[in-house]
Amino acid sequence: MASETSMKEPALAAALRDLLGDRLSLSRAVREHHGKDESWHRPALPDMVVFPRTTEEVQQIVRLCAEHDTPITPFGAGTSLEGHVIPARGGVSMDMMQMNAVLEVNAEDLDCRVQPGVTRKQLNEYLRDTGLFFPIDPGADASIGGMTATRASGTNAVRYGTMRENVLALTVVLADGRIIRTAHRARKSSAGYDLTRLFVGSEGTLGIITEISLRLYGIPEAVSAAVVSFPDLEGAVNAVITTIQMGIPVARIELLDEVQMDACNRYSGMDYPVQPTLFLEFHGSEAGVKEQAETVGDICREFGAGDFRWTDRPEERSKLWAARHDAAYAALSLRPGAKAWATDVCVPISRLAECILETKADIAASNMLAPLVGHVGDGNFHLVFVLDPDNPEEVAEANRLNDRLVNRALAMDGTCTGEHGIGTGKMKFLQAEHGEALSVMRDLKKALDPRNLLNPGKIIDL
Amino acid sequence: MASETSMKEPALAAALRDLLGDRLSLSRAVREHHGKDESWHRPALPDMVVFPRTTEEVQQIVRLCAEHDTPITPFGAGTSLEGHVIPARGGVSMDMMQMNAVLEVNAEDLDCRVQPGVTRKQLNEYLRDTGLFFPIDPGADASIGGMTATRASGTNAVRYGTMRENVLALTVVLADGRIIRTAHRARKSSAGYDLTRLFVGSEGTLGIITEISLRLYGIPEAVSAAVVSFPDLEGAVNAVITTIQMGIPVARIELLDEVQMDACNRYSGMDYPVQPTLFLEFHGSEAGVKEQAETVGDICREFGAGDFRWTDRPEERSKLWAARHDAAYAALSLRPGAKAWATDVCVPISRLAECILETKADIAASNMLAPLVGHVGDGNFHLVFVLDPDNPEEVAEANRLNDRLVNRALAMDGTCTGEHGIGTGKMKFLQAEHGEALSVMRDLKKALDPRNLLNPGKIIDL
Repeated sequence: MASETSMKEPALAAALRDLLGDRLSLSRAVREHHGKDESWHRPALPDMVVFPRTTEEVQQIVRLCAEHDTPITPFGAGTSLEGHVIPARGGVSMDMMQMNAVLEVNAEDLDCRVQPGVTRKQLNEYLRDTGLFFPIDPGADASIGGMTATRASGTNAVRYGTMRENVLALTVVLADGRIIRTAHRARKSSAGYDLTRLFVGSEGTLGIITEISLRLYGIPEAVSAAVVSFPDLEGAVNAVITTIQMGIPVARIELLDEVQMDACNRYSGMDYPVQPTLFLEFHGSEAGVKEQAETVGDICREFGAGDFRWTDRPEERSKLWAARHDAAYAALSLRPGAKAWATDVCVPISRLAECILETKADIAASNMLAPLVGHVGDGNFHLVFVLDPDNPEEVAEANRLNDRLVNRALAMDGTCTGEHGIGTGKMKFLQAEHGEALSVMRDLKKALDPRNLLNPGKIIDL
Repeated sequence: MASETSMKEPALAAALRDLLGDRLSLSRAVREHHGKDESWHRPALPDMVVFPRTTEEVQQIVRLCAEHDTPITPFGAGTSLEGHVIPARGGVSMDMMQMNAVLEVNAEDLDCRVQPGVTRKQLNEYLRDTGLFFPIDPGADASIGGMTATRASGTNAVRYGTMRENVLALTVVLADGRIIRTAHRARKSSAGYDLTRLFVGSEGTLGIITEISLRLYGIPEAVSAAVVSFPDLEGAVNAVITTIQMGIPVARIELLDEVQMDACNRYSGMDYPVQPTLFLEFHGSEAGVKEQAETVGDICREFGAGDFRWTDRPEERSKLWAARHDAAYAALSLRPGAKAWATDVCVPISRLAECILETKADIAASNMLAPLVGHVGDGNFHLVFVLDPDNPEEVAEANRLNDRLVNRALAMDGTCTGEHGIGTGKMKFLQAEHGEALSVMRDLKKALDPRNLLNPGKIIDL
């Protein structure tokens, strides 16, 4: 492979240099940065890195790479968790982060259009004076392009949905250089196939996303957050299930197990009980928030919880959610020098307690350090295996536990990943999850990228 | 064509007879029933009609038709409005209405699984004792399969979304006989391409839907409906726009213009002012509904409206929404013997007043009777041309007005259909709406139905 590509690259590199000038890099340091994500997956070096600034430049790069039979792997904030952005077969890493403009905000229509390198925090900063916000929050300050490509969700999804529900339209460059716009700005349409949803979650394997139109929301009149501890995990999960089943529109309802709470207390300087804990947030009118909070408080007490600890001031709330978002770093701090292998599954809410309790029993029977956190209102939870990736026994044990976790979720009519995506890490589970439907995904990949040049080796192995 | 098929049909009919017995019909009356929908589009006769009862039977029918190179057009309740179910190229009409079982209701997960011939009213009747309901309500008692295939929505979409948001998973029989399940029951997933959304809205052209999993919702604690009249259309539309922009979670917000109100008063025995009117419904807790209604009442008064006329009792509410759903029949009653040509567009909410007012001016400058109604909270509205389809001048005039309406919506970044779908009637607008993206839809059609046997002549002309 290396000898093959080394013959081709000088010509491709020269052509890209003509197009991009110093926005082409062959330097080892830049290539190394684009050879990894935040996961435990083994890095792989791209042969070169490009930094396009316009849809037309992306089109030209795609055409040049096609001429030279060279794969392209899009790269955003580098925060993927299953190896999505690792250029498994070398070639070109396309860094989208210089395409970082907010192109338009239509406040009166509650929508906006951004380039893929805009991060979610950047967008919310930009929106600050409009009274609007973009709620999807996967924790990391991911790029909107990356969040779209992985169908990300996060803490607010229980109320606001995932990227699936919140992307209105995309501009995409296809493998053959066609540029398409998948939809207009109408809130709904029955005009043909839903191309928007086809590209959301396609992880750069069907086309390269160069613009994203998003739904926005008014900042709620009232926001209130609370923390509540439970004597056991079962009570915490059952309180969540009851809340969801009653249709209470909680904005966030996050579970942290006692291992994770201990880590967060130490890492973020908090003093919460080392018990299974829910972090909650309520959005609405003053009266609506009060009503929601009272009802959920009653439910929690019914399942053995103590009182809510309220954090109503914005800065306290920020601290609380920063601690939640730092959960993986907190877990890592339990074992200096270790790496985090974050995995996630999602099951129907009625099976959530069973799935979590069996998973906890599995971990207890192992020697693995693996805190559990979750967007439990969606039936979605995470394990973070804290391990030494150079220790084959630890990796094998994490693999075994991960396999058991995924198979457990699938047996409960769930999915191998609720929000992290497939990348390379979850590919081995797709046949079990999708059966014959996987062959249809393969048909779609072949139809849109027959030469397998867009992020090859991810989701579908042609 | 006729001579070609007459050679083939005896063999296909014999094979289908072996499979289905008297659930194959060649009778003229049955074929005529399956040659039309509720639209003004010219009927076309299928050569035969089949009535499968299982996914496996659908698979066998698809395989037999493929062997005999014969197209299949799925048929549900027959309530489509753009000719979707008319077998444009003859062949087999596949009537799904004997597949009408509710297969499972998972009350604790707020979901269910149904066969495609279940109608929305049948489903809600079935759910009555569970405290749950399925909100999507396109007016007609359409089949869930048909609603899925056309990405239907209707009066409740402003709060609950469309079929796009409310279908969790599908079982689909593909053109080559493969049976796939597009997803499991988890509320969210990042596991590969979103096949569910690819088939929602594909109008039977990519596969035949044989099972649908749907989201359900708890019946709200409180429901309240109201009618409010405005001195002018602009005020009514601006009240809607303000309500949506403020993020008030109205469940229904429907506009009827003065022509439609006059028709509804006569047809449904009501006595509302013959003025532009909003029909509203609020869902929530007792306090929440009260709060929403007060805020919307203030907004309406600000735009010149009179007081709300409340209809809080369930039977009064039913009468109100029945009158709304009978709007097309009421329009028809204005001119006995005429036919209805119902068209719909959808625009960003900020352009809605402009779009509606220009459209009304267009109609006023024409001799066409065309009441206007709309799911205006989504930016979606309908014209019903009341015409004599055998009068070429009237048809030409309706065509002219419809073209102008669609081009107006597209120029405002809208869509040629918010919820009725493409069928044959809106195909001519797809190039203008989608541009190069239409070629991608064609690629998808070719990938999944290369011989063009599934509902040929709809959406995409291969």
